[in-house]
Amino acid sequence: MTANQKLYEGKAKIIYTTDDPEILLADFKDDATAFNAQKRGTIQGKGSINCTISSKLFQQLAIHGIKNHFLNSPAPNQMLVRAVKIVPLEVVVRNIAAGSLCQQTGLQLGTILENPLVEFYYKDDNLGDPLLTRDRLRLLKLATEEQVESIINLALQINNFLQDFWKKCGITLVDFKLEFGVDSQQQLLLADEISPDTCRLWDMAESDPNQRVMDKDRFRRDLGNVENAYQAVLQRVLEVLES
Amino acid sequence: MTANQKLYEGKAKIIYTTDDPEILLADFKDDATAFNAQKRGTIQGKGSINCTISSKLFQQLAIHGIKNHFLNSPAPNQMLVRAVKIVPLEVVVRNIAAGSLCQQTGLQLGTILENPLVEFYYKDDNLGDPLLTRDRLRLLKLATEEQVESIINLALQINNFLQDFWKKCGITLVDFKLEFGVDSQQQLLLADEISPDTCRLWDMAESDPNQRVMDKDRFRRDLGNVENAYQAVLQRVLEVLES
Repeated sequence: MTANQKLYEGKAKIIYTTDDPEILLADFKDDATAFNAQKRGTIQGKGSINCTISSKLFQQLAIHGIKNHFLNSPAPNQMLVRAVKIVPLEVVVRNIAAGSLCQQTGLQLGTILENPLVEFYYKDDNLGDPLLTRDRLRLLKLATEEQVESIINLALQINNFLQDFWKKCGITLVDFKLEFGVDSQQQLLLADEISPDTCRLWDMAESDPNQRVMDKDRFRRDLGNVENAYQAVLQRVLEVLES
Repeated sequence: MTANQKLYEGKAKIIYTTDDPEILLADFKDDATAFNAQKRGTIQGKGSINCTISSKLFQQLAIHGIKNHFLNSPAPNQMLVRAVKIVPLEVVVRNIAAGSLCQQTGLQLGTILENPLVEFYYKDDNLGDPLLTRDRLRLLKLATEEQVESIINLALQINNFLQDFWKKCGITLVDFKLEFGVDSQQQLLLADEISPDTCRLWDMAESDPNQRVMDKDRFRRDLGNVENAYQAVLQRVLEVLES
């Protein structure tokens, strides 16, 4: 592996090698995609906003004992991270019914779930990131039983932390997506990003179901003011951290 | 409830009341639908064939201790059944990967599963009968935990019986769909039908992936000779039972 070579380009990030094989550079793009990349666009400043929010949240999570891939942020849209092999699962934690959960169950948007739901989706664009039952996860051997148990526990801990944190920002955490990876020491680390691209965030001060949306649903559902919403989320995060 | 009134018309059956409120009459239709009724057609003789196969299998299952709704068959395409409230779940047992399991996991058609997979789908045409995780099943309260455990146990027992039975017919049981209902005594009973409409059945003597198909996939995938395949399945069932 040569340093500073493009290792992988995803929908929202480009991953580069560095001089250290244990460390990678994630470059966050302004490109926005939705519905398995059937909808494409650009959200001005998104790369820097998401990278900054993610960096701050990863630092906070580390302080709270949640090991993650974040090392430091050399530029607003760049993050140095520990090299991990990504577990091919999208781990979704849901506090309130929204998105595909509503479409697939008939639950009404906004239904508060008695207990948070931790769901697994197969991270495979060709298959359309399908929902996985525990039996299918086992059948496909996408993670060991031990990893699955660890991931569920971590996901619920992260949910507790994030619900509190976003509440301080005046934001309701509806649901969010996590990815995990395994480093060279076989350690399970939280990876990817935590941002308005990967969380559904509702402004607690707004009751209008469209006005309250501060996340990628503004882009998915053509609600307008996408950049402003992302910028507002960043501002609130910075304010809470400075207070 | 008046006697002989149409109570419900589904895609493959019409249910009528009888003089006894505990007993209903199921009239099996020749209508065939697939892909959530986006594809429609007729399979000549299907009603009688499916009703006869189902009646025979339900009788065999009862002998083997599996309680089900079958009472008797007053005509080749009619079945008197115990009135039950259907649990809104499609219970699918899979021995070999096929259909939506392949589409949603990338598993190759024909992959033999190490252990049979018991899967739950939400019986709701408007939602497209989506796959349910155990957590979603719990969330939607579609069945009690006790019912779910009983259904899994029954499904595996039924699978053992049916695998044996179809093997005697020279047929590999790939997968099948079951429905359960609860009678007026709150007893859980196997209901619906067991037929080439609800089972994937492969002729053990054929290795060609299209030739071997003896079930509704011939209709779904326009493989031709649909009536012949259904008729052949019935013949083999009757031969095994007479032997």
